[in-house]
Amino acid sequence: MDETSQPVELLLSVSRDARGTLGAQIEDGLRTAIREGALRAGAQVPSTRDLARQLGVSRRIAVDAYSQLAAEGYLTLRQGARPRVSEAAAVAGPASEPAPRATPPPRFDFTPSVPDVSAFPRAAWLRSLREAMGTISDWDLGYGDTQGVERLRGALAEYLGRVRGVVGGAERVVVTSGYQQGLGIVSQALARRGARGIAVEDPSNRYQLDIVRRAGLEPVPIPVDEAGIDVSALGRADAVLVTPAHQHPTGALLSAERRAALCAWLRDRDAVAIEDDYDAEYRYDRAAVGALQGLEPEHVVYAGSASKTLAPALRLGWLVVPGVLMDAVRVEKTQADRGTARIEQLAFADFLARGELDRHLRRMRIRYRARRDALIAALAEELPEAEVVGIAAGLHVTARLPFGDEDALRDEAARRGLAFETMRDYRPGDDGPLTLLLGYGGLPEAAIRAGVRELAAAIRLPGSRRR
Amino acid sequence: MDETSQPVELLLSVSRDARGTLGAQIEDGLRTAIREGALRAGAQVPSTRDLARQLGVSRRIAVDAYSQLAAEGYLTLRQGARPRVSEAAAVAGPASEPAPRATPPPRFDFTPSVPDVSAFPRAAWLRSLREAMGTISDWDLGYGDTQGVERLRGALAEYLGRVRGVVGGAERVVVTSGYQQGLGIVSQALARRGARGIAVEDPSNRYQLDIVRRAGLEPVPIPVDEAGIDVSALGRADAVLVTPAHQHPTGALLSAERRAALCAWLRDRDAVAIEDDYDAEYRYDRAAVGALQGLEPEHVVYAGSASKTLAPALRLGWLVVPGVLMDAVRVEKTQADRGTARIEQLAFADFLARGELDRHLRRMRIRYRARRDALIAALAEELPEAEVVGIAAGLHVTARLPFGDEDALRDEAARRGLAFETMRDYRPGDDGPLTLLLGYGGLPEAAIRAGVRELAAAIRLPGSRRR
Repeated sequence: MDETSQPVELLLSVSRDARGTLGAQIEDGLRTAIREGALRAGAQVPSTRDLARQLGVSRRIAVDAYSQLAAEGYLTLRQGARPRVSEAAAVAGPASEPAPRATPPPRFDFTPSVPDVSAFPRAAWLRSLREAMGTISDWDLGYGDTQGVERLRGALAEYLGRVRGVVGGAERVVVTSGYQQGLGIVSQALARRGARGIAVEDPSNRYQLDIVRRAGLEPVPIPVDEAGIDVSALGRADAVLVTPAHQHPTGALLSAERRAALCAWLRDRDAVAIEDDYDAEYRYDRAAVGALQGLEPEHVVYAGSASKTLAPALRLGWLVVPGVLMDAVRVEKTQADRGTARIEQLAFADFLARGELDRHLRRMRIRYRARRDALIAALAEELPEAEVVGIAAGLHVTARLPFGDEDALRDEAARRGLAFETMRDYRPGDDGPLTLLLGYGGLPEAAIRAGVRELAAAIRLPGSRRR
Repeated sequence: MDETSQPVELLLSVSRDARGTLGAQIEDGLRTAIREGALRAGAQVPSTRDLARQLGVSRRIAVDAYSQLAAEGYLTLRQGARPRVSEAAAVAGPASEPAPRATPPPRFDFTPSVPDVSAFPRAAWLRSLREAMGTISDWDLGYGDTQGVERLRGALAEYLGRVRGVVGGAERVVVTSGYQQGLGIVSQALARRGARGIAVEDPSNRYQLDIVRRAGLEPVPIPVDEAGIDVSALGRADAVLVTPAHQHPTGALLSAERRAALCAWLRDRDAVAIEDDYDAEYRYDRAAVGALQGLEPEHVVYAGSASKTLAPALRLGWLVVPGVLMDAVRVEKTQADRGTARIEQLAFADFLARGELDRHLRRMRIRYRARRDALIAALAEELPEAEVVGIAAGLHVTARLPFGDEDALRDEAARRGLAFETMRDYRPGDDGPLTLLLGYGGLPEAAIRAGVRELAAAIRLPGSRRR
């Protein structure tokens, strides 16, 4: 069947018992649908032949009704083309309103934690999608296993064991639709098992507080210093949410002593840590430190995603779950959405098996490292007072300034088209030194240098310098 | 770079200050990783060249360490092939346990609501994936719009307006990861706005009760008869969950009088209906009745998905939401998972725009109708006492029997490899006539006839006939 002749379905019915001729009923039905917005400008309507068949009326009646509607300006009829709702006739339905206007993108976008999606390996991913589409079983095309496709869970167990020292087989992996969903379902599973307080790093990503609260857990802020979270302050929490490989946003690495102390605390309290290993793949100066989960697999839920390594659009994440929590987490995942999209799961399994992720990460590490170097060099030149803190890792630099008025800087930065975050985004009311979080993932080196010059100018304005 | 020579990453580090030679440290690290299950049987390890570069040691040290490990049986080294963990050496890590054994599939699977995924249009879907991969913007590859990709929301608004009489533009559409997620987030949005009681059809799918309860709503069962839900019994509920086009599982169509009464109740109480339009695309005897939402768009949340029309694996669904609920629903979707996978969203937009869904549905309607006819004919022949109730629609037949002992039948059916549901799956403790729900979506006609013969034999056994 060729594309221009294929039938189009339309919800419309006529009755020989109703008032009006069959033709008039067709006209009224279409006029109402167009006026009320059910049929929108440019929408296809069935050919007269299909409409006649669909309604069980003669073709003549359909042709006459369409001619009338075309004459009234509702439909556009052209020889050889499908009939459509005319652009002029269709009005917004009663439920329509203008879409919210998007704000223009910033000139220099230093927003942290944003990967360079322009480097997404489209050809390789499409190849894996093709492989997935060609091999997916009927079982997986159906409701399948809500915990995740077996092939992907196996590939992830292998990958995470190899690259991050994560311990556990495919049976411990739960595929999620990203880190955020993973945090939500683990929090719900913990709350249902009686957990109440969850220690969270202070500072940390604020959106996470809302997620754990919605799950019924009470977040307890625990200070972070240059050795990571202060384990001695964990007290009587039932769980803890940590970023051991690269604390967000301070950039600290959890020290070996703190790791050992955290493991001891987890065992003593029989508590659970959620390890957010969000950008561990990006360490530029030495080999990455292994996951905490490898030290204490029965007390740590490991959480990762493809958002920073490939693209947030994939909405693919994973958990490696202690045995005692497995059933509860599986139930929560099933309740949430009956599993993550399975063609993409199989594509990712193929992508991992081909070594495409390793290859992509090697390429990106070189690119990000050059951007990081450019950012640090530009800061040294334009803003030498800035002290860069944290390890050489991830997708942003944390820079502390001995001066600067945050409110004035924010206004000035917005005027200059600069986007970035500060410590106050992670700790409202923070009164420590002005601390900037400058992401470099999405910015080429030249833009980084130009952007830092703008930033330095904004900070050096009299108003901004005051504090 | 050719595939067999690409580097592999491995988490391992050595230190000149640690005890033991560098080679011994490499050996110990790998032995431990293999023993503890972090590296599993068959897993790739880096080539000696890559390992040496990664650790900053001489190649000789790496070669010697690998030779030692191969001699000990930990690694398999073969000329020209990548070194791997040997199958014999790797043991399950401490977190491993045998995967749960899957039960064998039934011989005759009459489970209701299961589409025939063997007919999934793989080539057309792959074409749409390719189109999506080629055209996706960096914005959509990033975190994009959590409400859904604009192009898909527009295509859905057009499709639903045309086929189901749904009123509302792209700005009212929220893309979800399937119906179940949609129900969860709407329930949460309602609960946060103060709703407490939600009327649910009795009988209906039990899993939904758990979802609305978890959101903080109290389900209030309302009886269903041959004209659908009893609107006069809705009372003081704040919301109602309905299947107007085809009540599940009774197969009833909500009558015109009940529709009008339901709309009046919604306006009077300023209440919200969630319309589960789960299989409205499959009506075999006449044109489908339009969506309730088209009558009362400001009080009805329309909910649909691609699970019954294409495949559950896609995990794609949609809501059309009244303006007053829009912000709340958008927040819940963002909290749940920051949006649905976006490459698949764009693929589905392309699939709709090409008319592929219309085409697929036409093919499937013919196929399902033939299966439905075969099932009804087989019942008339083998089990003439069965009374088929409900409209000619959907993917299952509801059949009432004047005799039969449900417990005995279930045992006998399991022995004969028959899978189906009964009214008790939807209403525990139901003491009405034995009512079977026989899905035909996934069964060819010959299997339907043979399966019904088995079913009749199981029912006619002395034990099963008793009641």
